[in-house]
Amino acid sequence: MSWNQRHLLDIQSLSRDEITTILDAARSFRAVGERPIKKAPSLRGKTVVNLFVEPSTRTRISFELAAQRLSADVINFSAEASSLRKGETLKDTARNLEALNADILIIRHQASGAPHFLSRILKSHVINAGDGAHSHPTQALLDVFTIREKFGTLEGLNVTILGDILYSRVARSNIWALLKMGANVTLSGPITLVPRIFEKMGCRVTHRIEEAIENADVINLLRIQHERQREVMFPGLGEYVSLFSLNAQRFKKAKPDVMIMHPGPINRGVEIDSALADSPNSVVLEQVTNGLAVRMAALFLVSGNSASALSS
Amino acid sequence: MSWNQRHLLDIQSLSRDEITTILDAARSFRAVGERPIKKAPSLRGKTVVNLFVEPSTRTRISFELAAQRLSADVINFSAEASSLRKGETLKDTARNLEALNADILIIRHQASGAPHFLSRILKSHVINAGDGAHSHPTQALLDVFTIREKFGTLEGLNVTILGDILYSRVARSNIWALLKMGANVTLSGPITLVPRIFEKMGCRVTHRIEEAIENADVINLLRIQHERQREVMFPGLGEYVSLFSLNAQRFKKAKPDVMIMHPGPINRGVEIDSALADSPNSVVLEQVTNGLAVRMAALFLVSGNSASALSS
Amino acid sequence: MSWNQRHLLDIQSLSRDEITTILDAARSFRAVGERPIKKAPSLRGKTVVNLFVEPSTRTRISFELAAQRLSADVINFSAEASSLRKGETLKDTARNLEALNADILIIRHQASGAPHFLSRILKSHVINAGDGAHSHPTQALLDVFTIREKFGTLEGLNVTILGDILYSRVARSNIWALLKMGANVTLSGPITLVPRIFEKMGCRVTHRIEEAIENADVINLLRIQHERQREVMFPGLGEYVSLFSLNAQRFKKAKPDVMIMHPGPINRGVEIDSALADSPNSVVLEQVTNGLAVRMAALFLVSGNSASALSS
Repeated sequence: MSWNQRHLLDIQSLSRDEITTILDAARSFRAVGERPIKKAPSLRGKTVVNLFVEPSTRTRISFELAAQRLSADVINFSAEASSLRKGETLKDTARNLEALNADILIIRHQASGAPHFLSRILKSHVINAGDGAHSHPTQALLDVFTIREKFGTLEGLNVTILGDILYSRVARSNIWALLKMGANVTLSGPITLVPRIFEKMGCRVTHRIEEAIENADVINLLRIQHERQREVMFPGLGEYVSLFSLNAQRFKKAKPDVMIMHPGPINRGVEIDSALADSPNSVVLEQVTNGLAVRMAALFLVSGNSASALSS
Repeated sequence: MSWNQRHLLDIQSLSRDEITTILDAARSFRAVGERPIKKAPSLRGKTVVNLFVEPSTRTRISFELAAQRLSADVINFSAEASSLRKGETLKDTARNLEALNADILIIRHQASGAPHFLSRILKSHVINAGDGAHSHPTQALLDVFTIREKFGTLEGLNVTILGDILYSRVARSNIWALLKMGANVTLSGPITLVPRIFEKMGCRVTHRIEEAIENADVINLLRIQHERQREVMFPGLGEYVSLFSLNAQRFKKAKPDVMIMHPGPINRGVEIDSALADSPNSVVLEQVTNGLAVRMAALFLVSGNSASALSS
Repeated sequence: MSWNQRHLLDIQSLSRDEITTILDAARSFRAVGERPIKKAPSLRGKTVVNLFVEPSTRTRISFELAAQRLSADVINFSAEASSLRKGETLKDTARNLEALNADILIIRHQASGAPHFLSRILKSHVINAGDGAHSHPTQALLDVFTIREKFGTLEGLNVTILGDILYSRVARSNIWALLKMGANVTLSGPITLVPRIFEKMGCRVTHRIEEAIENADVINLLRIQHERQREVMFPGLGEYVSLFSLNAQRFKKAKPDVMIMHPGPINRGVEIDSALADSPNSVVLEQVTNGLAVRMAALFLVSGNSASALSS
């Protein structure tokens, strides 16, 4: 096992060995979540700060609970109620939080690169909880973890990612993680949102959804953020549903045991039919459970704990 | 002692023995609150989620502190900041929270029946923290507990509930609990809000406040929610005060040692004169203290702890 | 060592010995913040309530983390989301919180005297986290602590406070603390905001910034709250910057090793040049770290712990 990172900023920086290390650690921590007493002492007396400049209740709660289960003290700092509103810079805010002897700073920010910036100016460990359209490493790791738990390996698996690829940090991080772990990645969705440039990364790009689905072992549906959709690029909700929604008709083209993933929250009837979202093929709730385990693993590893301690 | 409930959804479902069990457990937990170290290990390593779709700071804090004192990990999830705003269904939100290995989900919701619905689809234990005009079981239990602590028993006691009975979940739950425990229940208030139909439950209904007061051992005043009062049914604030407010004049008709209750927050000068609210007859602050104890007992019992463990 | 206070309401009430006691305790607690396991058991099983009627994320977080590190249970209660909005009085809100067996109530309020009022009606210990233009004792204590750590003593030091003195609780509390500890205090700023009346307290008042700076060992810059500045008294932001901002030019007049303080958040380019704020003279981040230590000391001492227990 190997882990040489002080931070978790993106997937690109991780070696395949490091990804394997965090997935193995996550498996240990998922077992903690199934115990009667879901508690590990690893981060006792450590201070974890959730700095959520871009709001996200789900991801924040997942990190908060991960830190609590590791016995850390947790502080939530959201931009709305804070001095960031009073014109303070991100740099000053982060340094002030670090001055509270913060050990780990978890940041979510609408600007790409914000976590990398903080990692250069802080002594604390930094974990990226999503930055702009750039990266969302814990989401990618929990997705890869969920696939690996089912199939045993990602090597040679056909994984299709469907939806708004161009602006999605989830897609970007997933592509990196999947390729590193040896999967074949197919991207599909509206032509304006799935440009051929992704072929240079090693992905297959197709704008025919049937082609994207038919040999897939896994279909990962991205959330259509229709409450703040880019109006120019997006074809319109009705058109999206008619062309790309995973419905019963299209599902017939897929392998019977294809794994269906979605980062949540699902728009039922938009990305996927409601019945399919609740079918045995869907692992959306397992993804949530695994997300907590992966975040425990990330907190554990970046703060310098040895992965080998977990195997005992 | 007996307790056979996986959830705490309403008072109707509880037997008199079960109510007694929870009151006895609450007595033990009130003693915990009076110790120098107010902490019990019963729920260590358990995850409690406060899912408050309808906001309520007081009730949320009471549950949060109850869970903390039992050493649980607690997550607060409020609707405003959440994916519920993004169009996610309650079912999906609750399942996502459960997927974080939540042991107990506490829900407050403006829709009657929401907790019952969740109890059918979740494996977690569900506690109702107030649903629409339907039920507020922990409020009823803390009220009954407060009465029992003072009088020793509810058998044969005259309890009057005063105010907006028709739309009040507090009234509804209190009526069930009081009748089960053997009290005589009188309801009073404006005729539009206290219909005679309640007589079928076994209550006495009178629209003359003096009659409702004069033989009462306990008067429970409901909060007039004038910030969002139903305009059609409510007689107007001035009229309410002149006809139903518990003032010094009316108080003379009551037994000198009548117990005055109010679920809070009090509108001084509306439901009750300010001086009476602070008089020795008033137990409004004891209700708050007891509420915490009752909620500790509820968390303790629904999660499968044995009540007999408390007596040792 | 001596400490005879059940509350921490203002600096005036503290003797010089008591200030020394809390500074010494803060030193012990700062060492806790530098340990791998930043945790002390002193307040285990105690309940601390943050009652923030006037919002302040930074101060609230500092107190919250201080309480967590002392192993207390912490409840945050902000006015926005609460029954205070429903017309409940501060007295009722505070009593309701106390009825949850709260041991310590930390209050921030826009009305001067609110903490003193609560200390008279509650049995809980009360800590003032800032009240109106009146007092902000933990800020003054952390400032004095930061100076003492650097200079060893305050006796005979020249400390200049610069800015809106008239309406600043930070200035007021600092003046009391500095004078009690033997420092020489100079006040400077716009004539409308720094009246000569402060000379009666024992301060030097000058409206010429160069004079205020030149012999100072410490310069404490107050925050200009331009987002809600009193329009009549304040000269305007541009004029303030040109006359009173601490820029490179003016800094040449100061002692080379002068200590620069600011309670944060800084308006870069308003109270101080950005480069100076980040220079080795600036201790703004140490103030944040020390604030946590001072608040741990305050929580520890008001709740009746013996300072002598810390020296072992």
